[in-house]
Amino acid sequence: MSNYDLIIIGGGPAGITAGIYAARQEMNFLLISKTLGGQMAKKAVDIENYPGFKKISGMDLIQKFEDHLRNFKGRVENGNVAKINKGTNCFLVETTNNKVFKAETIVIASGADPRPLEVSGEKEFIGRGVSYCSLCDGPLYKGKTVIVAGGGNAGFETAIFLSKFAQKIYILESGSAIKADKVNQEIVSGIGKVEIITSASIEKIQGNKFVESVLWKNVKTKEISSLETEGIFIEIGYEPATSFVKDLVSFNKKDEIKIDSQTCQTITPGIFAAGDVVESRYKQIIIACGQGATAAFSAWHYLKNEKKLN
Amino acid sequence: MSNYDLIIIGGGPAGITAGIYAARQEMNFLLISKTLGGQMAKKAVDIENYPGFKKISGMDLIQKFEDHLRNFKGRVENGNVAKINKGTNCFLVETTNNKVFKAETIVIASGADPRPLEVSGEKEFIGRGVSYCSLCDGPLYKGKTVIVAGGGNAGFETAIFLSKFAQKIYILESGSAIKADKVNQEIVSGIGKVEIITSASIEKIQGNKFVESVLWKNVKTKEISSLETEGIFIEIGYEPATSFVKDLVSFNKKDEIKIDSQTCQTITPGIFAAGDVVESRYKQIIIACGQGATAAFSAWHYLKNEKKLN
Repeated sequence: MSNYDLIIIGGGPAGITAGIYAARQEMNFLLISKTLGGQMAKKAVDIENYPGFKKISGMDLIQKFEDHLRNFKGRVENGNVAKINKGTNCFLVETTNNKVFKAETIVIASGADPRPLEVSGEKEFIGRGVSYCSLCDGPLYKGKTVIVAGGGNAGFETAIFLSKFAQKIYILESGSAIKADKVNQEIVSGIGKVEIITSASIEKIQGNKFVESVLWKNVKTKEISSLETEGIFIEIGYEPATSFVKDLVSFNKKDEIKIDSQTCQTITPGIFAAGDVVESRYKQIIIACGQGATAAFSAWHYLKNEKKLN
Repeated sequence: MSNYDLIIIGGGPAGITAGIYAARQEMNFLLISKTLGGQMAKKAVDIENYPGFKKISGMDLIQKFEDHLRNFKGRVENGNVAKINKGTNCFLVETTNNKVFKAETIVIASGADPRPLEVSGEKEFIGRGVSYCSLCDGPLYKGKTVIVAGGGNAGFETAIFLSKFAQKIYILESGSAIKADKVNQEIVSGIGKVEIITSASIEKIQGNKFVESVLWKNVKTKEISSLETEGIFIEIGYEPATSFVKDLVSFNKKDEIKIDSQTCQTITPGIFAAGDVVESRYKQIIIACGQGATAAFSAWHYLKNEKKLN
């Protein structure tokens, strides 16, 4: 089995930046990810806050990141990580299709997965009306009625994007107030066909072959109502993707991996973490990139100092 | 006097990113800096580790950052900050040309200045043979002999750049070993006209109207030698630029501003700091940008929560 200096788990902004930095330090690295781009691939609106690009689509920025990464020698493996095991003086990374890779250091940059509503019908109707990616599935709802679950920026941006296709959009927010920025609220109110319902807790997604309606409860009056819809887009946040690493790192209350923020080091020497999977106040592409660079440098220093890399 | 939500001090990657993020949060901000771009303006070699750009000159990346910033409403003031004073429920920022600006919050992103050798003749010959910016001054040394002080990556990259112009280059490193990366060492050894002298401590820069020679001491044998040269490029590192803020923040031993790395908050509520001026392990454009975004978000949250910004 070949022995990598570094395995990077995840191919979003943090993972790709870690790869670029590892390559620049001449580390022999493997990046494992199902896809490249991470959450950028799901951005329903253009990115306007990655310095250097005034306005760029998530897919275009991913392409630039990928080109940058592939400019270097590191290997990219298409896959999902199932488990990290500690070997003798190394780490063993096992994928869900039973491949095992060996490395001296690890950067966990696995990002975050969409948080599910956890209501009846949700899992059942995934791909048949339930979606976590408006950019992927939005165009299927031309002329239809859709619901967006979540009244934060993600929910509002999803509604803005869906308004290109859908004839009617409901935003259902379980809290009593909208959390989206004013800018997004103004855009949505200008669209005209978006109705916002607050204090609305989604209880059940129902239908036959496809989604047909959603039951929601007014959390103040406890009244249950039904909304006819052909699609529901769930935008209630993300949770760190850490199922493959429960014992070698420590977590905060939000299940984010705790790190030393100067070095991105976890509690296990040789394991570093970066991006949306780690404890950090703000989740942004540029912040994830900075952490990816830090984690790769730290992995290099660790190898150089602790393991006497030549 | 108009009252800004935020004053950003410094126009390098951290300051510009803070500006972009402040603008996106609709903060009324002022960015004060003598120039835009910070140390990027002095990069003698192309930047290859800012994700999204495989290879770009410092000046081109600055232009992209500047275009991005100027796309928004914030004001940019050309100047140097002399002092930050605490006013009643605000901060007062005074420039060296005696202008005073008022703000609710501050992001210090003033970066770092080249560290001087602190030897006789250095100050005297600035602009007359002594330079801290090969990109600015290198072309003046066509066909001439030059010295680079410093055997780290910056010194080696400076020598690589200067080799386009100079006929002979000496790199003088005071330590007993070269600290530059292997890649840079290989490039320099391939150039042929670069001579490296280790354990060489520069003692004096001398000349009449312009630099004519440099005296250096072999730190092992204590022997003093003279090297004839028309230019000396000083590349021995940077020191945080913090002369204007001695009392409102705290410093580590390297004179870097201490921050809470989750929020970039200093010891004074309302004052945040980001980039090369803060305590952080690795000094990189992408890391500075991540901190700039964090600092601007924190300033916005501070205003919103503590000061009840509408």
